[in-house]
Amino acid sequence: MKIGILGGGQLGRMLALAGYPLGMSFRFLDPSPEAPAGQMAEHIVGDYDNEPALARFLEGLDVVTFEFENVPVETARAIARKVPVYPPPQALETSQDRLVEKRFFRSLGIPTPPFEPVSSLDELRAAAAQLGLPAVLKTRRMGYDGKGQYLLRGEPDIEQAWQALGSVPLILEGFVQFSRELSVIAVRGHDGQTVCYPLVENTHREGILRTSIAPASVDPGAHASAEEYAHHAMQALDYRGVLAIELFDTGSELIANEMAPRVHNSGHWTIEGAETSQFENHLRAVAGLPLGSRECVSQSAMLNLIGTVPKSEDVLSVPGAHLHLYGKAPRPGRKLGHITLRADDKEKLAAGLADLRRIVDRS
Amino acid sequence: MKIGILGGGQLGRMLALAGYPLGMSFRFLDPSPEAPAGQMAEHIVGDYDNEPALARFLEGLDVVTFEFENVPVETARAIARKVPVYPPPQALETSQDRLVEKRFFRSLGIPTPPFEPVSSLDELRAAAAQLGLPAVLKTRRMGYDGKGQYLLRGEPDIEQAWQALGSVPLILEGFVQFSRELSVIAVRGHDGQTVCYPLVENTHREGILRTSIAPASVDPGAHASAEEYAHHAMQALDYRGVLAIELFDTGSELIANEMAPRVHNSGHWTIEGAETSQFENHLRAVAGLPLGSRECVSQSAMLNLIGTVPKSEDVLSVPGAHLHLYGKAPRPGRKLGHITLRADDKEKLAAGLADLRRIVDRS
Repeated sequence: MKIGILGGGQLGRMLALAGYPLGMSFRFLDPSPEAPAGQMAEHIVGDYDNEPALARFLEGLDVVTFEFENVPVETARAIARKVPVYPPPQALETSQDRLVEKRFFRSLGIPTPPFEPVSSLDELRAAAAQLGLPAVLKTRRMGYDGKGQYLLRGEPDIEQAWQALGSVPLILEGFVQFSRELSVIAVRGHDGQTVCYPLVENTHREGILRTSIAPASVDPGAHASAEEYAHHAMQALDYRGVLAIELFDTGSELIANEMAPRVHNSGHWTIEGAETSQFENHLRAVAGLPLGSRECVSQSAMLNLIGTVPKSEDVLSVPGAHLHLYGKAPRPGRKLGHITLRADDKEKLAAGLADLRRIVDRS
Repeated sequence: MKIGILGGGQLGRMLALAGYPLGMSFRFLDPSPEAPAGQMAEHIVGDYDNEPALARFLEGLDVVTFEFENVPVETARAIARKVPVYPPPQALETSQDRLVEKRFFRSLGIPTPPFEPVSSLDELRAAAAQLGLPAVLKTRRMGYDGKGQYLLRGEPDIEQAWQALGSVPLILEGFVQFSRELSVIAVRGHDGQTVCYPLVENTHREGILRTSIAPASVDPGAHASAEEYAHHAMQALDYRGVLAIELFDTGSELIANEMAPRVHNSGHWTIEGAETSQFENHLRAVAGLPLGSRECVSQSAMLNLIGTVPKSEDVLSVPGAHLHLYGKAPRPGRKLGHITLRADDKEKLAAGLADLRRIVDRS
């Protein structure tokens, strides 16, 4: 089976690594000649709306998926008229616009922070008055890793925020008091079968995911809520593939922050930590194969390598540490790799994680 | 780090899959344009003694290894004058000739079946008289998967065996009564550190490995013996990388049958079943990185897919089954892939294995 993937970053690379053992082959479309997936698979260098590149990309493919949620929806729809595209383009469309996404969550009874659309300074003032401050002003589109966001602490920030972001459609989100950030990674198969990995606890710094711990310590009710959110969202979208939902845990409920219609950074631990990885399960879903077990093999922690990479020998001398480098040139703020630590119990996990943090922080 | 691999079969393919996450890149030299590793890495199509192909292969490599023990020793030595080659060419030389190999084992006190070199029909008669029948006549070189062997059941077989194999140097091996076949997979690092995976129990059919069970049920003494054999052999060869030794278990001792200076089919279970796979540990050794833990993550069984491949959906519906296809065209007797089954205990393993055997046998 020949699978086309829109986007050739690390997510695409890890999809290919998971798919080769299943006998799959891959072709990537990515505008960057240095795309990490191009080191191990066919890579068409071209923009997502470049017609000749797209035509070469599609030749002989059985199915198309994406590893990047900002693929133009029109491109995804045009492809879907020739080759099946999973997840469905409407999932892309929903997740590309924070306003559409939050209305979608609400329509399914999934709690979200309070929000208001903003398209003028007056609307921003009115929204701030209604939701109260602090609040977060966000671009409706193209935000990731904390980009395109402005925290409004008080009245004086309003005009500055508008000047920073006001050239594009915006959304103001009320501030949610939460004790921690969780995420749920779920996958839906060709037959509607759904598998939901255990909840993951995530720590961010400067808007970028730093650490995930899996499974998170949560009561069964929280897991059931998250699973229900994912289930409803995937059913509503007639979904096929992996869907990730980021959640705020307020202590009393889980509030949906955003979703990603693709494999997700907070699911990287599944490569070593789960019976079947998110990458393999995404491919199984896309290819119409039965889904694999989401059971945990161990306790796991995932550490992102941002901007710099420690010496491999240092990382690999920590027992249970597994290194994943993406073949990218170092640049501040760039995700260059991750480490998954596997341990028998939470105490060993915490000890190993402390060792790894020291190694990563001095790199 | 750019690693050159002589041979682009499934072993090379699985080495590349294990090495990409470590940030390594790969170039293969293999005479077949269809070599499985060529689907995911740079592949120079050429014979191992083709000078221009070798020159292109070596350009810019940091280190060279091999996945195929019949690489000409002269080629390995010529390469080693330009780029480090691990395991060392003398390990290739020793393992390519059954007579040299058995004498090597003997010199280290490692038990072997009784054997005699044979280079004429008279010598064969004399050897048969000395060792007794049954005995196995084997070509000294180029045998694998049971090829180049002739079982002598009685006197009348002698002349036929000679006619079948007598054009090349031979060895006659006395028949060993054994209860089962085991193997030990060990790896030695750049600093002499040695890691030895738990013993594996192997079942062959028609000379080809069918099933491996890991860890094998053995008493600690047996494991210690095997580890000692591997340790002595690797030390004597100033070894770096994975070494596999196939063993006959007579019930009272372990007798070395042969060794392979490379990753080995009976170690494929380590991809899912051990903390660090044989493929990753081989690369770590070759690249001068610290070795990883050989601890078992679970009980594991490995089933080879020979000649035919079952439907992926059938294999993947068995809980804990992991499919590995090599991207090879089906052909009778050809290793096309394997399945690793992971389970919490021996009972679940046996049940899942029975399911998988049914699926594989009807394919």
